[in-house]
Amino acid sequence: MSKLRLWIAMSLDGFVAGPAQDVDNPLGVGGMHLHDWVFPLAVWREMQGLEGGEVNESTPVVEASMADIGATVMGRNMFGGGTGPWGEPAWNGWWGDNPPYHHPVFVLTHHPREPLVCEGGTTFTFVTDGIASALDQARTASMGKDVSLAGGALAARQYLEADLVDEMEINLVPIFLGDGERLFDNLGVGNPRLVHVRTVAAPGVTHLKFERP
Amino acid sequence: MSKLRLWIAMSLDGFVAGPAQDVDNPLGVGGMHLHDWVFPLAVWREMQGLEGGEVNESTPVVEASMADIGATVMGRNMFGGGTGPWGEPAWNGWWGDNPPYHHPVFVLTHHPREPLVCEGGTTFTFVTDGIASALDQARTASMGKDVSLAGGALAARQYLEADLVDEMEINLVPIFLGDGERLFDNLGVGNPRLVHVRTVAAPGVTHLKFERP
Repeated sequence: MSKLRLWIAMSLDGFVAGPAQDVDNPLGVGGMHLHDWVFPLAVWREMQGLEGGEVNESTPVVEASMADIGATVMGRNMFGGGTGPWGEPAWNGWWGDNPPYHHPVFVLTHHPREPLVCEGGTTFTFVTDGIASALDQARTASMGKDVSLAGGALAARQYLEADLVDEMEINLVPIFLGDGERLFDNLGVGNPRLVHVRTVAAPGVTHLKFERP
Repeated sequence: MSKLRLWIAMSLDGFVAGPAQDVDNPLGVGGMHLHDWVFPLAVWREMQGLEGGEVNESTPVVEASMADIGATVMGRNMFGGGTGPWGEPAWNGWWGDNPPYHHPVFVLTHHPREPLVCEGGTTFTFVTDGIASALDQARTASMGKDVSLAGGALAARQYLEADLVDEMEINLVPIFLGDGERLFDNLGVGNPRLVHVRTVAAPGVTHLKFERP
């Protein structure tokens, strides 16, 4: 069966979003710094249609994170708002006509809405009946490939609590947000039931990968 | 002035001790696994008077952590109890006559007690008038060398809250304790005021070093 793969950035003090998180500022105060390491990368710039950029130890990790993904699940705050999912301010700009997913995306929400079909193969389907339903729909749509769990914090924690995450890449950023939303909070002893399989130290980030034992 | 250097192991979910922490079990349930990476190391075994062991990427980090230290400050739970500061069960055994510090150690406690002079140059002085006093005494005793802050969780957090830590090595262990005592908790936005200076990925641990900017 296709795997559910969580890809998320976390501060060393455990926050995946800073304080005062809302729809217009989904990463909260300081949260954009969770992605400082990715913006200079050539692999990231290429996704935005830009040339140039750096190649470093993060490059193969980012490339692998996008490989063999046939669908994405995300929380409502990841879908819309004033900044992008990586914290860049031009969200509405690049999101606009041709989102960088190029596959079906399932958005967890309480508000029913018609599917949104974009250029380049990205469709947004809004799921109101819970995380299991969204995952089922994403797995069907992924045509045998894996499903990406793109965050945000609440969606990621809900899937972890339900033990539905098969692979997890924690992009650990050595900063302190001081407050905000934790990923690993009240999950209880023995959860998540994933084991560490490799570490990649890169400029401004350490990539820690976990899998089901 | 001599630096205060914090050296502590933390799980990826942010705990420096597991749940049900007490004097007899200072690392709490599962907390001993925070130190699984250190026991096989030759540099650790040598400290215990044992031969053999591994040399890997952690070796120079552990060696550097012990260099230029003239005194140690620790919390009460680190000083006594049923297991050692690294979680090994034979605490009372190796602690006994010749502790591995070989310099003055200042123990934070609420209970006055006469100093304890051991073989090999280790003396334990019990400080009842707070963290600043313990640090002052340790700095005086260190004869110009640095002071090691050896934990546990509460002592480390108190010194961080007071912005008294000059260097910090977080030995990040890719496990989940699920519950217990956090190091970075309620410190507030902008604290600790330390910046990342280097990362070393090693078997079973990632060493993340921070300094005052």
